[in-house]
Amino acid sequence: MADPADTTGAEPAILDDALARLGDIDGRTGAIMQSLIRHLHSFVREVEPTEAEWLTAIRFLTRTGQISDDRRAEFILLSDILGVSMLVDAINHRSEATATETTVLGPFYAGEQPVLPYGASLLKRPEAGSELVMAGHIKGSQGATPISGARIEVWQTAPNGLYDVQDASQPAGHLRGTFISDASGRYRFITALPVSYSIPDDGPAGDLLAVMKRHPFRPAHVHFMISAPGFRPLVTQLYIAGDPYLASDAVFGVKPSLIVEPALVDGTQRITFDFTLDPAP
Amino acid sequence: MADPADTTGAEPAILDDALARLGDIDGRTGAIMQSLIRHLHSFVREVEPTEAEWLTAIRFLTRTGQISDDRRAEFILLSDILGVSMLVDAINHRSEATATETTVLGPFYAGEQPVLPYGASLLKRPEAGSELVMAGHIKGSQGATPISGARIEVWQTAPNGLYDVQDASQPAGHLRGTFISDASGRYRFITALPVSYSIPDDGPAGDLLAVMKRHPFRPAHVHFMISAPGFRPLVTQLYIAGDPYLASDAVFGVKPSLIVEPALVDGTQRITFDFTLDPAP
Repeated sequence: MADPADTTGAEPAILDDALARLGDIDGRTGAIMQSLIRHLHSFVREVEPTEAEWLTAIRFLTRTGQISDDRRAEFILLSDILGVSMLVDAINHRSEATATETTVLGPFYAGEQPVLPYGASLLKRPEAGSELVMAGHIKGSQGATPISGARIEVWQTAPNGLYDVQDASQPAGHLRGTFISDASGRYRFITALPVSYSIPDDGPAGDLLAVMKRHPFRPAHVHFMISAPGFRPLVTQLYIAGDPYLASDAVFGVKPSLIVEPALVDGTQRITFDFTLDPAP
Repeated sequence: MADPADTTGAEPAILDDALARLGDIDGRTGAIMQSLIRHLHSFVREVEPTEAEWLTAIRFLTRTGQISDDRRAEFILLSDILGVSMLVDAINHRSEATATETTVLGPFYAGEQPVLPYGASLLKRPEAGSELVMAGHIKGSQGATPISGARIEVWQTAPNGLYDVQDASQPAGHLRGTFISDASGRYRFITALPVSYSIPDDGPAGDLLAVMKRHPFRPAHVHFMISAPGFRPLVTQLYIAGDPYLASDAVFGVKPSLIVEPALVDGTQRITFDFTLDPAP
């Protein structure tokens, strides 16, 4: 491999030319493009791809865009499986020691869903497997005061491991819903106990996982996006204790504070979890 | 921005986890994935994208794949305008001091074309503008001996600045052709004097050029791909002296040794250029 400290010759000259050609760009965009070009050239000089290898990379990225559509976001999956989505999450939530921890949005958020009443079910068809009741409070002020009128968006897979947007057999909006916290800051809904599942591995992201000799599974979880006026929106997931994939989540999404253990009460699985929001900056 | 030397906290922990999860991969693939993950995380930690900025990047890459098809290779264009294609070219041709210099293939090579006889024209329809006669030798052994039977593939834009594959009004294969060097190693063909032109700038690559405040033009050139048994294939371009874009080629492809000056002989523009191939490794 080339000595990366070599600042003479054709290779650093191309980098210098690429940087010098950047026009009079405003600060933020200029900094991003400088960094992008430097890191990209540094990566290529380090691995020294053959022309055939570089063409393979070009084709891989092209396929990643081409398999994407309204229901499939393959570049988000790539970002997820390389740990970049969780890195962006960590960078953007450094100072929120008191709020509930964040995790990745994932590629299966499907936009706003109808508001359901307190205690309603997310099921638009019956499902085999255990029913689960989830309930708790939305709180602010470091968990001291309830927030009423918070918007709680929820989504998860069916017991077959697929989201409605991946599975034509499911009714649209199945296992999705929006709730509004009540005057006491409470939320409550009925759903199906989530299961661990494979991310879509029939495309480039799955091919890359195979190259890395990694499995494509995510531990069972329920997605939440919670917002309220005056508070910073919260995007997170709750994971089910005991799942075999908690330590090897394909998208690096698990944080210990987000693992919850269902309790069997009167024959029904129940999870109680309070979410805390930080004030808006 | 974060101190890049900080090796504690959530951000380096995600990198460590992503690297540790790489399975038992063979040397070359493992080295590429290690380097890719390290540089990607390093870039993200340096620029600290907001979640909205990262989503913009995801959408940009998705569009880049989606605009690509059999006739448009937008990720090659991206690689070209960021100087990466010329970097890969430089890395793969470090030791060829005696051969004709290489440059980028570009996205408009359209596969093998019919073999035309010595001296034939590339034009499948008449074109306005100057006729150009290109001729010379294909040589080996550091330019000392002619190579007969070399395959010379040629392609270029029409005087309207478009390749046949970009322009439905042009006959397929217009301004493309394959020649075989004769017993003396000679080639010769008739074409139209090439013009400087804009790379396709109506997609993501054009958007990125606008962000970088760079123009999308390439200086006038003719593409060559030359191969012969026992020799290393040569991918290059010849540029026309005096072109206003020689110093600011949008894809960084120009090398001084590849600039040629047409001579007006008997009322016709003529370029004579000898290509030298290196022995196959």
